[in-house]
Amino acid sequence: MGAVGVATAAAISIAPKLAKHLRLNLNSFLSAFPKSTTTVVPLFCRRRRLSSPLSPPFPSRSFCAATLQSSDGAAATAHSKVGEFRRKLKVVDVKGGPDQGLDKLGHCLVITGWVRTLRLQSSVTFVEINDGSCLSNMQCVMDSGAEGYDQVESGAITTGASLWVQGVVVESQGSKQKVELKVNKIVLVGKSDPSFPIQKKRASREFLRTKAHLRPRTNTFGAVARVRNALAYATHKFFQENGFIWVTSPIITASDCEGAGEQFCVTTLIPNSHETADSPVDAIPKVKNGLIDWSQDFFGKPAFLTVSGQLNAETYATALSDVYTFGPTFRAENSNTSRHLAEFWMIEPELAFADLNDDMACATAYLQSVVTWGSDLQSEHERYITEEAFGGCPVIIRDYPKDIKAFYMRLNDDGRTVAAMDMLVPKIGELIGGSQREERLDYLEARLDDLKLNKEAYWWYLDLRRYGSVPHAGFGLGFERLVQFATGMDNIRDVIPFPRTPASAEF
Amino acid sequence: MGAVGVATAAAISIAPKLAKHLRLNLNSFLSAFPKSTTTVVPLFCRRRRLSSPLSPPFPSRSFCAATLQSSDGAAATAHSKVGEFRRKLKVVDVKGGPDQGLDKLGHCLVITGWVRTLRLQSSVTFVEINDGSCLSNMQCVMDSGAEGYDQVESGAITTGASLWVQGVVVESQGSKQKVELKVNKIVLVGKSDPSFPIQKKRASREFLRTKAHLRPRTNTFGAVARVRNALAYATHKFFQENGFIWVTSPIITASDCEGAGEQFCVTTLIPNSHETADSPVDAIPKVKNGLIDWSQDFFGKPAFLTVSGQLNAETYATALSDVYTFGPTFRAENSNTSRHLAEFWMIEPELAFADLNDDMACATAYLQSVVTWGSDLQSEHERYITEEAFGGCPVIIRDYPKDIKAFYMRLNDDGRTVAAMDMLVPKIGELIGGSQREERLDYLEARLDDLKLNKEAYWWYLDLRRYGSVPHAGFGLGFERLVQFATGMDNIRDVIPFPRTPASAEF
Repeated sequence: MGAVGVATAAAISIAPKLAKHLRLNLNSFLSAFPKSTTTVVPLFCRRRRLSSPLSPPFPSRSFCAATLQSSDGAAATAHSKVGEFRRKLKVVDVKGGPDQGLDKLGHCLVITGWVRTLRLQSSVTFVEINDGSCLSNMQCVMDSGAEGYDQVESGAITTGASLWVQGVVVESQGSKQKVELKVNKIVLVGKSDPSFPIQKKRASREFLRTKAHLRPRTNTFGAVARVRNALAYATHKFFQENGFIWVTSPIITASDCEGAGEQFCVTTLIPNSHETADSPVDAIPKVKNGLIDWSQDFFGKPAFLTVSGQLNAETYATALSDVYTFGPTFRAENSNTSRHLAEFWMIEPELAFADLNDDMACATAYLQSVVTWGSDLQSEHERYITEEAFGGCPVIIRDYPKDIKAFYMRLNDDGRTVAAMDMLVPKIGELIGGSQREERLDYLEARLDDLKLNKEAYWWYLDLRRYGSVPHAGFGLGFERLVQFATGMDNIRDVIPFPRTPASAEF
Repeated sequence: MGAVGVATAAAISIAPKLAKHLRLNLNSFLSAFPKSTTTVVPLFCRRRRLSSPLSPPFPSRSFCAATLQSSDGAAATAHSKVGEFRRKLKVVDVKGGPDQGLDKLGHCLVITGWVRTLRLQSSVTFVEINDGSCLSNMQCVMDSGAEGYDQVESGAITTGASLWVQGVVVESQGSKQKVELKVNKIVLVGKSDPSFPIQKKRASREFLRTKAHLRPRTNTFGAVARVRNALAYATHKFFQENGFIWVTSPIITASDCEGAGEQFCVTTLIPNSHETADSPVDAIPKVKNGLIDWSQDFFGKPAFLTVSGQLNAETYATALSDVYTFGPTFRAENSNTSRHLAEFWMIEPELAFADLNDDMACATAYLQSVVTWGSDLQSEHERYITEEAFGGCPVIIRDYPKDIKAFYMRLNDDGRTVAAMDMLVPKIGELIGGSQREERLDYLEARLDDLKLNKEAYWWYLDLRRYGSVPHAGFGLGFERLVQFATGMDNIRDVIPFPRTPASAEF
């Protein structure tokens, strides 16, 4: 990508009083511009800043300083062009390759990050900096000749502080890393108060859950975040490369054809902000007999958080052939265990013109794709997965008795079982649950009747069987369980950034 | 991918009574298996199916029939291996290349999909089949010699019906396409009731919103779904390739440091399922003075649907350097316009060691990456985007008066403005809003005081400034507005599968 903007010639000045009306005036405002690419307009006339707020040593991303320049070099109200965006240089870029950084010997570069440890020796100081890009720190070595060394001497640089460091990549004398940074210049960006709760001594995972805003700065939670990210991207990659379309199923639903488990109610009848939380029960509107008056709620009827996007995904699968959802789902079950979350992410593929065998083949191929190879999982986890997880034996169980399974599963020819499958994996248990869906209108209606479910509510779901019905199948996978499977973390609360469980929805 | 499963030798039979206890017995159950890859176990002994439920002509995905085989070829209770998963052949695979299908001449293949139109001529019948993989249909030509032609003659095949068609790719005599399928065999998979509401005549978008489960079967909504998908994947690709980590910010939040707009309350104090929706107001627990007793709610305090993941993303950016969220957010504003949704998807990148210039550069590079090239947008939309959308002029406005902007934006040196920016694009208006965040603890606390916000509630957000604070910046982009920008759709309700707006949360 080259420079992206070309400044236009005319200077535009916007009166301050226009600010609040900017949206209203957008059309006429825009029409004042000649054809061009992205243009930057300062809202107020003001003096040109002499320095970036990041102060002298900060290059804007990586090596390249991208600074704003006004088009005529003078008027502060002139258009400016947008600088080039570059991937920031990270520790993983230096040390993550096969040579572990030896290919960068002699390079002068800048690293930014947070201090993990600081060791002062008589003639030399070691600072380990982590920027979250990989498990590995950048060991920075400096002596009193380094610019800014007085900040080390004054004791201002402590664990948790943020640093900007410039230096040259040299071979490391230590055995823990191939290269280290010989520091020319060091800048303390942000001090760390001595109360910083994540010190070198190992903190328990229970304690770290109370510091969910700081725990990604630890080795374990940093690694979990990276694995979670890699699994999510590998998920999209697998489905995209196999021709699936990502569909967003709705989060809020007033459709009353759900019913798997307890749901959260979504309402504006009771406080719709923290400021109004002290609200009397009597203020809730009611109809004559004292029941809640749902007609006054936001959606005009009771609405809930979704428990599954499957039924919605089916509507798109029967139009686009193969689709998948990847979004949050919810359970209001009061389960205070290491296996349950009130809010978790689900992946739900749905395949048209497919049966249970296709479904199992897809689930197996998916799982192999995201945690065998082809994904960019951190190498620190590869060994665990191959040796531990896949050393065990994923098993699929299929064809369950219809009475213990959901209404939409396809009845097998035996009349007693349905075309359902669960994939079980070591340590996690059920990782995937799927089924072929009942595509025959008469069978599906009979099943709804058997279960005394309200057929009217399912009108749109039944329509899919009324108009060009096709055999189709899909499965659901709890994303957090997949992250557990890949990382070996025991407690599901430790594989999602901000876990929601009974009595806990902090941060 | 080769075959993925190797059957183990021993036959496993599971007694039906075990079914309900399967989860409990998982560990001992799994320990019975030798090391192996994925194994399929039928839950019940039953006769081996002689045919797939998709019946004779259906190959499992594309050309390759993947059938279950029991390991010893006899016992129905034996392990089986999982078949190979293959990408299903779609119309886009045949016609989507540069040769528009001419490279496939003479190939015999199978297409599945839904009938768009049917034209009977004296000696030959044309059926246009669409499978949702692209705008283009597969034109299928057949005469009375085709197997299954009686289904055409009987009138059973109508618009909306689903078909399985086998034929040979031949040059088309028509001018609308290069190739067509000369049909050997046709199978009606699912009839379409004559009431099918999406007939050839153009239906209004207002009408189609009431048929949200069927509208993806139209040209317009199929294309919107594919563009939406391409934009989502291009979004992930851009950030992943630039070293950002995808972070899931929480959907439910009891943290009371939100406040941008009206929020939905999430509760189990009032009905937690449709079955119990007829609930008296008096049943809601109250404390002595008649106020709602939040201690009895699921989270022990009032909880709401998130309006933004930004504050949470900041906690990860200040550990992992660069992160982004991509998830649903909510507004309980009673705005019944073509520009507002109660539930929409947001993309919120957050960059550490970055200022407003970096932020603008990132926003510009992102937008160019996802709607210029590098994404796999359907060619039908490329022209629109280049000629219409980018023919206009995206503009960034920066440095707004602090009084009209949020508390977390960084105060500029003039003391009057904050380092905020909005990117405006033709027809949409504000597409992106971002800012550099206030990283100075004393400034941020003063700002909270000025606004009479409760500092205690922000303890964890302030911690980020207390421990190794860094300059950081980010932006938010409403994903549906991006889809509007890329497709030119006027109403935001037409670019999300199931729109949620006041009084409307159907499907």
